[in-house]
Amino acid sequence: MATGNARGIVLLAHGSRDERWREPIEAVAARVTALDPQARVVCAYMELAAPDLRTAAAALIASGAKALRVVPLFLGMGKHAREDLPLQVEALRQAWPQVDFQLAGIVGEEPELVDLLARIASKS
Amino acid sequence: MATGNARGIVLLAHGSRDERWREPIEAVAARVTALDPQARVVCAYMELAAPDLRTAAAALIASGAKALRVVPLFLGMGKHAREDLPLQVEALRQAWPQVDFQLAGIVGEEPELVDLLARIASKS
Repeated sequence: MATGNARGIVLLAHGSRDERWREPIEAVAARVTALDPQARVVCAYMELAAPDLRTAAAALIASGAKALRVVPLFLGMGKHAREDLPLQVEALRQAWPQVDFQLAGIVGEEPELVDLLARIASKS
Repeated sequence: MATGNARGIVLLAHGSRDERWREPIEAVAARVTALDPQARVVCAYMELAAPDLRTAAAALIASGAKALRVVPLFLGMGKHAREDLPLQVEALRQAWPQVDFQLAGIVGEEPELVDLLARIASKS
């Protein structure tokens, strides 16, 4: 990866012991890279899978990212999204005060996603 | 709900003790109804929230549904999606042999969804 002011993206998902659980999450990362070959994107997991958010952030920062966007790939808005995640991002800000961290809303609350899920559900 | 051959849709999500976890799932159900006011759609949960799949299916069948599409609103492809869910749907087929059950793939494997998640993740 090139150095500079490029932004890193962390796709943060729940995680599972099951290796295959991660496949769709990794497919999203591959698609981000396809849409923007300059993008620095890594997957991270809240539990049961590696890397965790801090490890993923450290790797992106070590590669030169000065801004990091954390995108929670959660459909449901539970304790992880409401409580654990803001605390984890705050800890990142304390660890790397020179990096601009942005915590996106959970994808499940994006109107476009709600609409697409409804259209997928209505297919015959 | 009207009787007849109308199809029922069960939006099946993981579930959480947290009441707010379900809000995005219920938003998808509302959007299905907005897209198709005739649609009979209910949410159901694998664990930690009610109703479960069987209870949701029973309600739709009692209201006259002759065909039921079960749509797993999972991003990750874990044991629930690969093992538990096909067994649960098979049990429904045994309980209601006159009803046509269709188990959709998890939404996380839909190429359109992968693309939209990537576009959401890439936003500035």
